[in-house]
Amino acid sequence: MLQGKMVGCKLLLVLTLWTMSPEAFRRGAPMKKCHLSKYKSLPPRELETFKNVKDRFEDIMLLSDRKCNTKIFHRNWEVKELSVHDRVILVKEELHLVIDVLENIRDPNLSELLGRPLEILRHIREDLKNCTRHQPDNHQRSGRLTSWLQKFHAAKKMETPGCLEASVVLNLFRLLNEDLKCAAYMESCT
Amino acid sequence: MLQGKMVGCKLLLVLTLWTMSPEAFRRGAPMKKCHLSKYKSLPPRELETFKNVKDRFEDIMLLSDRKCNTKIFHRNWEVKELSVHDRVILVKEELHLVIDVLENIRDPNLSELLGRPLEILRHIREDLKNCTRHQPDNHQRSGRLTSWLQKFHAAKKMETPGCLEASVVLNLFRLLNEDLKCAAYMESCT
Repeated sequence: MLQGKMVGCKLLLVLTLWTMSPEAFRRGAPMKKCHLSKYKSLPPRELETFKNVKDRFEDIMLLSDRKCNTKIFHRNWEVKELSVHDRVILVKEELHLVIDVLENIRDPNLSELLGRPLEILRHIREDLKNCTRHQPDNHQRSGRLTSWLQKFHAAKKMETPGCLEASVVLNLFRLLNEDLKCAAYMESCT
Repeated sequence: MLQGKMVGCKLLLVLTLWTMSPEAFRRGAPMKKCHLSKYKSLPPRELETFKNVKDRFEDIMLLSDRKCNTKIFHRNWEVKELSVHDRVILVKEELHLVIDVLENIRDPNLSELLGRPLEILRHIREDLKNCTRHQPDNHQRSGRLTSWLQKFHAAKKMETPGCLEASVVLNLFRLLNEDLKCAAYMESCT
C-alpha cells in the first residue's frame, strides 16, 4: 500500500517537472523528437514517384513560358558549409516553396501524379519543424543563410508561376538527395 | 606447288566476286556490317557524361526563352510498333537533329562538357548509317514514320534555337534508353 503511494508520488513528480519545462509549453503541444536519420536515403520506390513527376513535367514544360529572372535555388556555397541547425532551416524553407508551388499546379496531367510526392514532402517538412523546435533559443543563423533566404523569398514573389513551377521541379532531386541528406547526416555531412 | 597455285586462284576468285557485288560499290566504300547490339545498354560511365550535360543545362536553361510551339519529339505510338528497319531510320533522323543542335551550342559552360557525348553520338549515327545501307532497296517506310518525320523536320525549321536546345537535351535519355535500345534489340524489342 505504502509502496503503491510512493510510485504514485514519483509519477506525479515526473509529470509535474515535465509539464513545467519551457519546451513542453512551447507551441502548446508536446515536443516530438528530432528524427532526420531516415532521410539519409529515401526508399527507391518513393524516389520513383518524384521521377515520374519530373519526367511528365519535362514532357510538357516547354509549351509554356518558363523564363526566370534569377536562379531561385542557386547558391555559391554548399549546404555542408552551414551549421547543423542552419541546414535544417534551409531545407525547411526550400520545402515550404516546393510544397506551395506543387499544391497549386492545376494541370491535371501533372496533379494526378502529385498525391504521394506531396504527402512525402509534407511529412519531411513536419519532421524538420520538430527539429527547429529543438534548436537552442539563442541559435543565431549565419549571415550566409540569412542573406540567401532574403534573396530566395524575394525571388518567390518576383518570379512568374511558370518559372516557379519549373525551378521547383528541376530542383526536386537536388533538394532530396543533397540538401535533405546533408541535414540528415548532421555532423557527419562534411 | 600446284596446290599453292589453286589456293591463290580461289582467293583471287573470291576477291573478284566480292568486289563485283553491287553492295561493295555502293557509296564508293566497302560495306561495314550492321552492328547495333552493343547499344542494348550503354556503359554507365558514358551515360554519366550525358547526365552531366543534362544537369548543367537544367541549371541554366530557365534563364533563356525556351518556349516551343510543339513537342518536337512527341509521338502517339511507341518505337517498338515500327518495323526493325524503320526504327533505325527514326533514331538516325533524331540523332541528326541532336548532334546538329549540340554542335551549335555556344555557352562555354555547356560546350566544355559536350566533347565526349558528341563523340559517342556521332559514333552511334555512323553505326546507324551502316545499318540503313544494309536495308533492302525496296524497303518502304511506314506511313506512321513518314508522317512523323515530316512533322519533325518542319518543327526543326520552325522552332527557336532555345526551344531546340531544350527539346534535345530533355529528350537525350529517351533517345538513348528507349529508341536506340529498341533499335538495337531488333526483333526482340516487342
